[in-house]
Amino acid sequence: MTRAPATVSQLLDDVRDVGRDARRGGYSRFTYSAADLELREWFVGEASRRSMDVETDRNGALWAWRSDPGASLERAVVTGSHLDSVPGGGEFDGPLGIASAFVAVDLLEAAGLTFDRALAVVAIPEEEGGRFGQACLGSQLMTGAISPDRALGLRDADGMTFGEALTAVGIDPAHLGRDEETLGRIGAFVELHVEQGRGLIDLGQPVAIGSSIIGHGLWRLTVAGQGNHAGATSMSDRRDPIVAAGAIVAAVRDVARTVDGARATVGRIKAVPGGTNVIASRVDMWLDLRHPVDGVAAELVATIVERAQVAAAAEGCTVAIVEESYGPSVDFDHRLRERIAGVLPDAPTLSSGAGHDAGVLAEVVPTAMLFTRNPTGISHSPEEQIEESDAELGAAALAAVLQDLLGANAKAGAA
Amino acid sequence: MTRAPATVSQLLDDVRDVGRDARRGGYSRFTYSAADLELREWFVGEASRRSMDVETDRNGALWAWRSDPGASLERAVVTGSHLDSVPGGGEFDGPLGIASAFVAVDLLEAAGLTFDRALAVVAIPEEEGGRFGQACLGSQLMTGAISPDRALGLRDADGMTFGEALTAVGIDPAHLGRDEETLGRIGAFVELHVEQGRGLIDLGQPVAIGSSIIGHGLWRLTVAGQGNHAGATSMSDRRDPIVAAGAIVAAVRDVARTVDGARATVGRIKAVPGGTNVIASRVDMWLDLRHPVDGVAAELVATIVERAQVAAAAEGCTVAIVEESYGPSVDFDHRLRERIAGVLPDAPTLSSGAGHDAGVLAEVVPTAMLFTRNPTGISHSPEEQIEESDAELGAAALAAVLQDLLGANAKAGAA
Repeated sequence: MTRAPATVSQLLDDVRDVGRDARRGGYSRFTYSAADLELREWFVGEASRRSMDVETDRNGALWAWRSDPGASLERAVVTGSHLDSVPGGGEFDGPLGIASAFVAVDLLEAAGLTFDRALAVVAIPEEEGGRFGQACLGSQLMTGAISPDRALGLRDADGMTFGEALTAVGIDPAHLGRDEETLGRIGAFVELHVEQGRGLIDLGQPVAIGSSIIGHGLWRLTVAGQGNHAGATSMSDRRDPIVAAGAIVAAVRDVARTVDGARATVGRIKAVPGGTNVIASRVDMWLDLRHPVDGVAAELVATIVERAQVAAAAEGCTVAIVEESYGPSVDFDHRLRERIAGVLPDAPTLSSGAGHDAGVLAEVVPTAMLFTRNPTGISHSPEEQIEESDAELGAAALAAVLQDLLGANAKAGAA
Repeated sequence: MTRAPATVSQLLDDVRDVGRDARRGGYSRFTYSAADLELREWFVGEASRRSMDVETDRNGALWAWRSDPGASLERAVVTGSHLDSVPGGGEFDGPLGIASAFVAVDLLEAAGLTFDRALAVVAIPEEEGGRFGQACLGSQLMTGAISPDRALGLRDADGMTFGEALTAVGIDPAHLGRDEETLGRIGAFVELHVEQGRGLIDLGQPVAIGSSIIGHGLWRLTVAGQGNHAGATSMSDRRDPIVAAGAIVAAVRDVARTVDGARATVGRIKAVPGGTNVIASRVDMWLDLRHPVDGVAAELVATIVERAQVAAAAEGCTVAIVEESYGPSVDFDHRLRERIAGVLPDAPTLSSGAGHDAGVLAEVVPTAMLFTRNPTGISHSPEEQIEESDAELGAAALAAVLQDLLGANAKAGAA
């Protein structure tokens, strides 16, 4: 009953039109949206095709289990990633890791190997925070890094709560939260992901091993001024929060430039009420800030807050700043990383400026990442790209790593 | 059959909860939305209560006609305003003029006067452009200032075209356009409006006569950069259009400040795709600019375009600028204004920084405006306000003006 292994390209072809965003370009695959549900069905279909058992855990993650007769479900080797995207994101951020995982399962199967330990592919929901604003929501619920109460109250752009969205897709919100049973089954977690920078381009390599994730926080800034008529209010009588917000955006960039390795971004900004002929009364804007050293990140934010307050006051406005999330810098498990380096001796190690569920799970279980080269170096954008040959090399590298982890006890099967 | 005249407050009480916007504050009464349809029903009800004949013209304006037996429908005296609002606007911008008009009808009725000329109250749709982005859309269609084709293609925030919206409320889009028959019936148009600045506060007067509307244009700026990952892209590798947009907002303000009487505003700004962890690929922003001298407005825009291009280039971005609308400065009919000044000798004259349907109709028919004092001086905001006593003084002033215009031939009725 051996099937020929699928390729990553074949698998992704089947979902290439799911969640396309004609307005923004690229893909908008928001968690539990119609597009996401279609991707989850695709996951279930691929798992079934491989005779893997599918289950949805308490926090909405999809699991596909492959266990040979007599294999232990304890200390399973788990691989996977996420299906959701940012608004107008690329095709590969998330799904590449899922497709590579299923292909790796095929490659192990084709090699006629059976194992004493179970292997699972997992898809963790709302990694991007694209719908409810909280990145790595699924993994944070699984580990208890976020409380169910706080998660349930998060709202999407239409005002629907996360709890309502769960109920709408048949997941009982009463069971959210740290999931000891699921965590207890994970012996190691390896996430393959499209690279989101230019590291592998510069190194001329197709696959890298992740060393760490740099600390990452999100702050909401509310700049309050005085709404008024754009035609009837003289320039000197204004307290215009958009003018203040513009100065704050400049300050964010200037402050980040002063410190090596710092990255600070305003990517979302909203003027309220937002009429063209209205001086806004308020601007909501979000600051994404990252630095490998948590103390330096905190200092950068403090400096930005000071500068923002000065900029707002100069326009007769005020600014309030609330931390929405902060994930400290994460070093992946050193022993696991060294073991993987033994399997992939040519692969360089790279630090990730982007956050990942692997970074959250690393707090609880031995965790590693692989990155597949992205020839544009661009991510969270329709221009994110993967060469077909690199995709297959990535899946093969993942298969080799999984075989090694499963395989102190690997034995030739009956094929 | 004489009823006691209604008061402006009584009339507005009936619609005080229509179209409240819990999110933005104030009111969002978008043209042909449920809230707007409710206001249109209220208009029809008030007209019927006064035995006025209601009709909807080819461009969706609602008309209520009062004509005594034998009165001529030619050279009618028309008053009215609009029902729609900006997003999160005030209660009075628009509806005050409609309510004052119906009260004025009551006051003339109570005085037992009949007239040889007809009197009409009109509500003109989409004055604010709050739904389809084109201010004074209804009056521009009526006079032919905008072509039906262009109007039909305008889209709301959900992507619905103006044509589809008309069809949805039972107005045939095939009949849009310059309406000679309707225009031919207007002998004079007088619009009463809440003042949108502090002129009457400073002068200590409740009612003013409008002298002019200052020129008003809307430009759309598209700032294009390179979308990318907020964490994985170093500060030096960015072409971030939000940073460029911030500098453009500052330039808009700085340029407007250099010229007396100029007003320039960015009130709407949108980052695409708008994820918090994404460097935007594009920012759409709108420039509202006004100056009493059209040539000066054109120079200001040219200077802003230059400055915007420099600001965008400094970030490795580009900016494209498209004029969405321009309405030149309008002086109201001098003879009509002098006649009204004779009726209201204490009323000062004020220029309007805001646009109005009266400014569009002034190109075709003798037109005048009255302004009622706004004790906050704030408009297009929930803080827009009217004192009850001022509202009644405004309606009484309007009634006196209408009586005079109707009334070279006014005669005591049979009351």
